Amino acid sequence: MSFYDAVVPAYLQMLNSLTGLLTKAEAHCEAKKIQPEVLLGSRLYPDMLPLSKQVQLVSDFAAKGCARLTHSEVPSMPDTEKTFGELKQRLAKTIDYVKSFKPAQFDGADAKDVTFPAGPDRSITMTGQQFLSSFSFPNLYFHAATAHGILRHNGVEIGKRDFLGVS
Amino acid sequence: MSFYDAVVPAYLQMLNSLTGLLTKAEAHCEAKKIQPEVLLGSRLYPDMLPLSKQVQLVSDFAAKGCARLTHSEVPSMPDTEKTFGELKQRLAKTIDYVKSFKPAQFDGADAKDVTFPAGPDRSITMTGQQFLSSFSFPNLYFHAATAHGILRHNGVEIGKRDFLGVS
Repeated sequence: MSFYDAVVPAYLQMLNSLTGLLTKAEAHCEAKKIQPEVLLGSRLYPDMLPLSKQVQLVSDFAAKGCARLTHSEVPSMPDTEKTFGELKQRLAKTIDYVKSFKPAQFDGADAKDVTFPAGPDRSITMTGQQFLSSFSFPNLYFHAATAHGILRHNGVEIGKRDFLGVS
Repeated sequence: MSFYDAVVPAYLQMLNSLTGLLTKAEAHCEAKKIQPEVLLGSRLYPDMLPLSKQVQLVSDFAAKGCARLTHSEVPSMPDTEKTFGELKQRLAKTIDYVKSFKPAQFDGADAKDVTFPAGPDRSITMTGQQFLSSFSFPNLYFHAATAHGILRHNGVEIGKRDFLGVS
């Protein structure tokens, strides 16, 4: 199997399931007369990132993961989204971007070195497999699960099946 | 690279980082005079699983993932842990179990079919790669990140670097 199969479907699963979570969150706001920006600004603790930023980070880790692993130009998206609709549009754009990669672009990428920034003044170099396993996946799932946790904590009726995208 | 490299280091990273999170949580309880069972029973919402169960599930998804992918006997651990020490012991046992697998046991496992239960009365069959990407990883990271979210929400001073195991 190609390394592509270890990367792209996993990213797409989270981008799609997060889109579904946002759809349910938006409906919840409408049903309960909650201002969307209140839920989008919710956090699990005052010094944690709000829901909107968790979504933007999932988008970033997926897009940048594809770019770094294929040694393509790393895309940068400004974090300007202020509504559920805009965040879902960002996820849709990210899905299109991730889908634009071809399996052949990932051939041998598991063993090739990837260098990426880790903080403002240092970078890390590791193999593509290590980058995926120890950095990209844990970060991507961390922010997706934290988004789920914020919504769940605020009473949105979702569950792990929504997170997995199988509901 | 072997499929082993796509599986075992990722499981071990989460088992180890979760051990670190529990160590900080236990110290937090001592410092703040919080009864450990209060934090271990904390949830992000009343119908969500408590911290202790989130930890047990991370242990399960790692151990069972290794077993299913290598077509070994699937281990079963009773969820009897009631203290931080017992949960850390469970994680330590799981780490030993995961480390007991040899890379050769995973050779070709990405393309081989895996059948696993999905609910009480149905099972799913997919390739090892699909099982890892679409089921094992999202579940493992979901419960680890939810454990992190519960601790963070309760004021334990941890962050994503602890979740990644790089602090």
